[in-house]
Order: sequence, then structure tokens, then C-alpha cells
Amino acid sequence: MLTNAEIKRIKSLKEKKFRDEFGQFVVEGEKLVEEALSSGFRVLAVYREEEVGKEAMERMSHLTSPSPVLALVEKPAPKGVVLERGLYIGLDAIRDPGNFGTILRLTDWFGISTVFASMDCVEVFNPKVVQASMGSVFRVEVLYCDLPDICRRFRRMDLPVYGTFLDGSDIYEQSLADEGLILFGNEANGIGPEAAAEVSSRILIPSYKQGPTAESLNVATATAIVLSEFRRRCR
Amino acid sequence: MLTNAEIKRIKSLKEKKFRDEFGQFVVEGEKLVEEALSSGFRVLAVYREEEVGKEAMERMSHLTSPSPVLALVEKPAPKGVVLERGLYIGLDAIRDPGNFGTILRLTDWFGISTVFASMDCVEVFNPKVVQASMGSVFRVEVLYCDLPDICRRFRRMDLPVYGTFLDGSDIYEQSLADEGLILFGNEANGIGPEAAAEVSSRILIPSYKQGPTAESLNVATATAIVLSEFRRRCR
Repeated sequence: MLTNAEIKRIKSLKEKKFRDEFGQFVVEGEKLVEEALSSGFRVLAVYREEEVGKEAMERMSHLTSPSPVLALVEKPAPKGVVLERGLYIGLDAIRDPGNFGTILRLTDWFGISTVFASMDCVEVFNPKVVQASMGSVFRVEVLYCDLPDICRRFRRMDLPVYGTFLDGSDIYEQSLADEGLILFGNEANGIGPEAAAEVSSRILIPSYKQGPTAESLNVATATAIVLSEFRRRCR
Repeated sequence: MLTNAEIKRIKSLKEKKFRDEFGQFVVEGEKLVEEALSSGFRVLAVYREEEVGKEAMERMSHLTSPSPVLALVEKPAPKGVVLERGLYIGLDAIRDPGNFGTILRLTDWFGISTVFASMDCVEVFNPKVVQASMGSVFRVEVLYCDLPDICRRFRRMDLPVYGTFLDGSDIYEQSLADEGLILFGNEANGIGPEAAAEVSSRILIPSYKQGPTAESLNVATATAIVLSEFRRRCR
């Protein structure tokens, strides 16, 4: 039986401090719950509307329109960083959970298995990140780290560190490697100065338009374009 | 002086029926208000926190964190469709205002001046669309139309109609024209059957990954990748 206290506890997992305290997070919706069950994650409980009632579902839900199914999932222990050669992305201070989740969905699509995230990024098990990732959160590893330090580790392995800048060089005209780290920066401020100092190759997505245009692209759409271009070149 | 009635009226513009009734919409934030003022749109009033007070701004605002400046803008009269040769996009039942606004920002960046939208897309002057477009709403023309009919008009001009499908052909390996219409479909259901029947070229963004991966991409990120690839080819 689902007690009042348990309903309140599940609802509290909306906040990072309670996700940390209990070591759990919430997944909602038929598709995402299925993905959780077939992933390597430990699913602690699955609640369905037909069993616990609509009111309990509404009280537990983190969504505006509660789903008929909700799962409680154990947060995996954070892993240490073992750097192998390959293509990775690094996220610097991505705060918007929709952007963060969309970027995870993209990295999953483009076969990037690990994302390095600065400590001030939104947390990967935030319910809005989980929902926007459409389940990619179960397949892509997110490692919170000191991002400038990770950049230096790539450089010491003689691997390039790419970064997107509005004064970078045209991505379509420069050589792109199939190994290294690609940095994407905060929604308003871009890549911070400390990580930017470690970038070996500054790239720009050129605007096609003459005259007044959008000043920049949303970080998730920029990630889409950059990953597509890296993968197209390396087929 | 800003009356109570006027504050309520401005707040009501969150809803399409009142935007239609009054022929007005709201823009918030320093940057967006500047963009409105320097655009061809008619700005009817600009309210600043230092003049009207914080409480009035909070009551008028459509945002969770109200901005210190808000403008009331006249909705332009809808234009008729005059088809000239060029590259266009068509949106079929895009419901999420964040996606719709992000797509407008992308079309602006990639120099596409006109977007055809099916009648069941979200309205372009919805405050969340305006905000997500980051001002591109003032530069990109959105024409609400019978989308399958527009597709047929492109076909009659011997112009291709592209559409993104999960069973399409690899976008990187097929020829792409610099004129025609590119369709993007609803978040959950893709391009509807009536518009899909008019597609002359089905395109797919290939997933790089072997094994389980994201089932699809978010429509705004798919738009980013497709527009980048069209423009890269036609430089």
C-alpha cells in the first residue's frame, strides 16, 4: 500500500537535495518506464494508476499532465573518469533541463557514450532532464567533473578540444577529427573563460543569411548541427 | 497611467482568443523589446518597471520571472501566399511553443524567410513562441495554410517537397536542391498522411550508433541538422 508519507517522499524527489539524500529519481510515462526496466538501472518500484488510483498518481507526479505510470529508480553511483580515445562532449554550465535532456538524446543518437558536465550544469536525474532525454539518460553516461581539468587531460593525450564560438572558423571548412572533446557552453554566456582557454580548435556554425539575423543558436540545436557534421565526416 | 483593466487585458493576451480579439501580442525582455522596436512591427506601448512599478509588471507578465520591460505589439494582418522559387520549410502540427520558436530562430539563422504552418500548429504570437524565437518572430514570415495544398503548389512548379521520415534515405548521400519545401512533422506522430502523400523525397538523419539508441530526434534538433546540411551543400 502506498502511504501518504511515501507519496510525499516521491514528490520531494523533484529537488536535487532529496534525490541525493535518498539516492533515487523518478521516471514517468509508459515508454520511459519500459526503458528504465530494460536498462541496467535498478528499478525500485513501478506505480500504475489502475493500482494506486488517479489521485495518488497526481500527487506523486512531476509533470503538468500526470502519466498513468511512474517508476522509482535508484541513482547509480558516480563513476570515476577513465579516458579512452574516442569522441566526447563537454557541457559547461548548461542550466536548462530541456536543453540538457535534448543534448543527451542527441549524443545517444550520434553514438557518443559519455558526456562530461561541469559541476554547475543541471543534474542529470532532474525529472525534466529525464523526460526531455526520452530515455537516453539510461544509455549515456554523464560525468560531473572539473571541465577545464578534463580538457587538459585530452590535450595531454594529444587529442583536440573543440569549442563553439561566434568568432570561430567555419565548421564546414575545417578538419574535424573522430577523437577528442567538443565543448558547448551556457545558454547566455557560452563557454566559460577557464575551459575556453583549453580549446585547441574554435568552430563556428556559419549563418547563411545576409543582413539582420538571429544572434546565435540555441545550444541544443548547435549541438545537433555540430554532432551531425562530425559524424558525417567520419563515416 | 496603467489601469487595472488594462493590466488584466494585457495578461489575457496569453490566450490566442484574446490575441485575435485585440489584434495584439506581448513581448518581454530588453533584447526582444529592442528587436520589436527596430522591426517593421507596430509597437503600441512599452512598459518599464521603473515607471509602472514591480507589482504591475508581475501582474502583466507571461513569464515565471517577469522581465523589467514589456511591449505591446500589433499583430500584423495575415498575408496571402505568393510562391516564389526558393527554399522554404513547412511545419505540420507542431504543438510545442518552445519547438516552434526554436525552429523560427533556426530558419532565421539559415536565411529561410518564410515558414508554412498547418492550421493546427501553435500560434506564432503565443508568448512562449515569441520568447523561444529570441526575436526571429520579427524577421521570419509564418503563413498558416492548408499544408497539403501548399505541397501540391510546389510540385506543380516542379519543385521538390522533402520530408523527414525514419524510413527515409540517408540525407548525407542524396542530392538536395536549393529550392523547394522541407516538411517537419508533429512531435509524436511526424508528418501527417495527407502532407506525407505529397512528399517527393523522403530523408532520414542516420543514427551513428549500433545497438539500442534514441528512437528519434526532437523536431527542432532534426530541423537544425537538415537545414545545416541543405545550406552546406548550396554554398
